[in-house]
Amino acid sequence: MTIERAVILSTGDELTTGRTVDTNSNFIADKLCGIGIDVAAVITVGDYPDRITWAWREGMRLAEVVISTGGLGPTADDLTTETLAALTGRELVLDQEIADRIRRMFEAMSRVMPENNLRQARFPAGAVVIPNPLGTAPGFRLSLETEHGLRHLIVMPGVPREMKPMLEDQVLPWIQQQRGKREIFLSQTFQTFGVSESALDELVAGAVPESEGRVAFRAAFPQVSVRLTVEALPAEAEQRLPRLAAAMRERIGDYVYGEGDTNMETVVGELLRQRGATLGVAESCTGGLIGHRLTAVPGSSAYLVGDLVVYSNAMKEKLLGVPAETLAQHGAVSEETARAMAAGARRVAGADLGLATTGIAGPDGGTPEKPVGTVCIALATAERVYSRRYQLWGNREWVKLLTSQLALDWVRRYLLGKDPSESGVLRR
Amino acid sequence: MTIERAVILSTGDELTTGRTVDTNSNFIADKLCGIGIDVAAVITVGDYPDRITWAWREGMRLAEVVISTGGLGPTADDLTTETLAALTGRELVLDQEIADRIRRMFEAMSRVMPENNLRQARFPAGAVVIPNPLGTAPGFRLSLETEHGLRHLIVMPGVPREMKPMLEDQVLPWIQQQRGKREIFLSQTFQTFGVSESALDELVAGAVPESEGRVAFRAAFPQVSVRLTVEALPAEAEQRLPRLAAAMRERIGDYVYGEGDTNMETVVGELLRQRGATLGVAESCTGGLIGHRLTAVPGSSAYLVGDLVVYSNAMKEKLLGVPAETLAQHGAVSEETARAMAAGARRVAGADLGLATTGIAGPDGGTPEKPVGTVCIALATAERVYSRRYQLWGNREWVKLLTSQLALDWVRRYLLGKDPSESGVLRR
Repeated sequence: MTIERAVILSTGDELTTGRTVDTNSNFIADKLCGIGIDVAAVITVGDYPDRITWAWREGMRLAEVVISTGGLGPTADDLTTETLAALTGRELVLDQEIADRIRRMFEAMSRVMPENNLRQARFPAGAVVIPNPLGTAPGFRLSLETEHGLRHLIVMPGVPREMKPMLEDQVLPWIQQQRGKREIFLSQTFQTFGVSESALDELVAGAVPESEGRVAFRAAFPQVSVRLTVEALPAEAEQRLPRLAAAMRERIGDYVYGEGDTNMETVVGELLRQRGATLGVAESCTGGLIGHRLTAVPGSSAYLVGDLVVYSNAMKEKLLGVPAETLAQHGAVSEETARAMAAGARRVAGADLGLATTGIAGPDGGTPEKPVGTVCIALATAERVYSRRYQLWGNREWVKLLTSQLALDWVRRYLLGKDPSESGVLRR
Repeated sequence: MTIERAVILSTGDELTTGRTVDTNSNFIADKLCGIGIDVAAVITVGDYPDRITWAWREGMRLAEVVISTGGLGPTADDLTTETLAALTGRELVLDQEIADRIRRMFEAMSRVMPENNLRQARFPAGAVVIPNPLGTAPGFRLSLETEHGLRHLIVMPGVPREMKPMLEDQVLPWIQQQRGKREIFLSQTFQTFGVSESALDELVAGAVPESEGRVAFRAAFPQVSVRLTVEALPAEAEQRLPRLAAAMRERIGDYVYGEGDTNMETVVGELLRQRGATLGVAESCTGGLIGHRLTAVPGSSAYLVGDLVVYSNAMKEKLLGVPAETLAQHGAVSEETARAMAAGARRVAGADLGLATTGIAGPDGGTPEKPVGTVCIALATAERVYSRRYQLWGNREWVKLLTSQLALDWVRRYLLGKDPSESGVLRR
């Protein structure tokens, strides 16, 4: 019997009381979708045996595989293993090897293992342990015949850092194997900017026939990604994926800034490094966000020389050499000021490129001529200075974020030999 | 019959395919917890009538009230209303007033209403419409006798911006009223820093007897908040809340930086504004994050003069006047360099205060003497320069975030007349 559907369970009072957002379920749903498994439901319950039992029962009713996170900790309110043992009528058995391993982990930290942690070494009889290289609580899986047919129960810890590799390296391959398919799944992700999801959808339509592959969108701005997945026998899949990916790229290539699991700041960083180019930044309305994003990438000190956040006119003059007349005549939010800022950032940093933003992020400060969302971006190079004025929308946070994404895209476009000022944004 | 338990339902393929994270359920769970309602389960299903039906059935079995978001859009895959009508055996009835309102909303945007949108004006017979001032799709509620007893079904749109005020202004007060309690809920939230959740828990224990109030923690670093809720008759509640809050404040006051729905950058901004003080910042390891956080607060240009992100030694010398000997002798990551950076930021910005960070955010760049996580913070004032070296932990993102929180806390402490360098962090 093949596995077509899954139910995802999350356990923990912190989720049902709103203390923490459940990001695990989203991660698992995305990965399952990637291998063509239909998620019938996501169920979250607090740390109560009756509710956990209900959730597992319903999960087994709805789907061939039930994947759970949470409730594997060492304390009394961690009930997943006990509840599942009771529900399936299995005894809990101590796995001596796992117990020794947990004890050694504590010893390595010069700590004595609390006896409680032995709970993490007990599993329902017949369960197969799933090793957890990153924490004390291993996962496990249990396959059993039920009134609904064969069911696979998969239990993982709730710590995302431990759960994610366990899912990707051990659980998903096992599921694929159980499905007994000779077909494999291959996928390719495109990161896009400057286009709405629905416009992307229209552009892609037709490039990928339904019988050949699936296209899925995922938007968590500034990340808007499109994933192409093909399912076929290995030789066919390896041939089909690049063919369909090329067809897609032909249609959406103008909006694609990266492929795979990347983001704009990483792509810009890689290009700067490849070209051996350095960057100086001057930020007004983005207030440090561009610097923050660039420096989120390890090793960014190789190309980011400095970033001057100049919130006052005085600082714009003093640090960047923006002429007082420019500020007086055109205002702080103007292409003229942005150009002077970019040239100043380039000069002060002694960098190859100077990037600048100035704008009105709101909620106050707008005028009829320059409403909230008015933003100017400029890029100074050895040859010339590019600039453009944009009318953006949304709240302060959104204007900052969108401006930072635009500005980084300017650098990327320039380094690729394109006109940076053609970087545009569609209204969502 | 009173309402003690709730089930939260979320509907939408974008949730079960991992395209978007369900933040609505977390918001609703937190608010329900705040009025003492126990969330029995959170259930998410895609846009399939059979799965939506299953979710509502189970919801009605588990709890007296079921609150749903999503599936109220105008398109064919928005199935909540139809499915619920079929499940409860009610006809769908057009509400002419709502239909006219939706049509007028389109006219106001100079658009013709697609006939599809009339779907949003149809409700199951007997439903009470919940107005949506912010969008076209109103919510509705339906109370009915079931085999499990009286059940209240509440349906809201999935757009967070529309759902949140609907929940707070209309749904929660109605639930409170249904419960027929004369008791009201009052709550007070404390924002804390520099203490682990479990340590907070220990500190608070005993200050709030279980019979008098409930204490709940919520951590989304850098936000770690503690909420005290009392339930009592109005006169008693108004007297009890400040008394218990004072008892809590006495125990955790050292770690409380704000009360209510605020954050560190807002608190620091308010203090700077009250004192009429200005701030200049110099960031190395935080890379612009401090500036980004400060400028996330509207009106921050009143006190933030500028922020120099100096990633290279040359920039530290040139822009901030850090002596070359200091860099050579003590290194870029040292209290000495941080002190010179802070003094330089204060001088260059012409500000009352100069704040500086320098450190090793990792993953590379650590040495035996200065491992990854070594961070120095300094604050220059008219009188003196404070500085301290910290040994933090975690990945690059975490070190940046923690350092920015520490640095902002330094400014807060100084403005309150405390020694800023006593700002500390406990290992979680």
